[in-house]
Amino acid sequence: MKDIVETIRTRRSVREYTDEPVSDDDIKFLIDCARYAPFGSMQQPWSFLVITNKEIMHMLSESGKKGMISILEPIKNISKQSYDYLVSLKDIFYNAPVLIIIFGNKNVLSSVIDCSMAAQNMMLAAHSRGIGSCWIGNAMPALMDEKILKELGALAGYKAIAPLIFGYPKGKTIMPERIEPEVKWLR
Amino acid sequence: MKDIVETIRTRRSVREYTDEPVSDDDIKFLIDCARYAPFGSMQQPWSFLVITNKEIMHMLSESGKKGMISILEPIKNISKQSYDYLVSLKDIFYNAPVLIIIFGNKNVLSSVIDCSMAAQNMMLAAHSRGIGSCWIGNAMPALMDEKILKELGALAGYKAIAPLIFGYPKGKTIMPERIEPEVKWLR
Repeated sequence: MKDIVETIRTRRSVREYTDEPVSDDDIKFLIDCARYAPFGSMQQPWSFLVITNKEIMHMLSESGKKGMISILEPIKNISKQSYDYLVSLKDIFYNAPVLIIIFGNKNVLSSVIDCSMAAQNMMLAAHSRGIGSCWIGNAMPALMDEKILKELGALAGYKAIAPLIFGYPKGKTIMPERIEPEVKWLR
Repeated sequence: MKDIVETIRTRRSVREYTDEPVSDDDIKFLIDCARYAPFGSMQQPWSFLVITNKEIMHMLSESGKKGMISILEPIKNISKQSYDYLVSLKDIFYNAPVLIIIFGNKNVLSSVIDCSMAAQNMMLAAHSRGIGSCWIGNAMPALMDEKILKELGALAGYKAIAPLIFGYPKGKTIMPERIEPEVKWLR
């Protein structure tokens, strides 16, 4: 039993993993938790692609990195830190043993919102079992490539929304400091 | 202490509330939980607007409903159930005592994703304290109206993303059945 509030407060985006695989049972558990997220239409908008194949992950890493570099190249002086960090990455998936991509139905207006909430369920549920996670936005250029989607056998009518890695954290993970957000009250 | 997995599995979208207010402490607690969501850029992209003023909520309900009806009118035969339900609603906020709107920084590409994950944190944290919640998409037409945003004193450079109501549930809340999602494995 893991307290929800403590889980919310101590979850981190993990960027260093051991080689220990995540069990099939744990992967099924994460996907089960995803589908309890709320959704905005009359139908569940999500489907899942689970990738543990290292060759496929390597291909997606190379393609995602290349695509993201070409997006950031023209503005690299504005976000130099992000650009340099990306260029330095050997593997955008940080050696994680599994990548789970949440796809959203293209016909559902709230797909991005619904799948993001499903992703948060998965990352919290993972943390409650000692499994680290990270949303890998850098994979998106690869996952918007029709040729690659075909290779992956992605369902027609769905778009990739949340590329999430899971695995066991290696070393300590530091959380960026949270600042007090702007809050306005209308009473 | 509330178990994270049980909280994820038993959270419901609540559409009927008692008149009991949500305390300021609870509202602050929910916003505190929101900011522990992951975010995709170097800065927290969110700000919060807390509305307990019944006149303002009524104005937003009327405007949101009117706007949503005009959006759905041309396609009302396709989604007749949703359309008829909307027309029948007296208050799109279901008499909830508080509306918290998460706004996202317009300059942050991942605002919608980040704020959706923050919203899920809030709804889970609320459920752990017996507070019900619901994402009110029907409020969006009102919250995209520049005149209304000015009246609300919304921060410049931010857009409304997640209109969330909170309150104490009245009666039993039924969860729509979850079906087994499509899952594909690439090993």
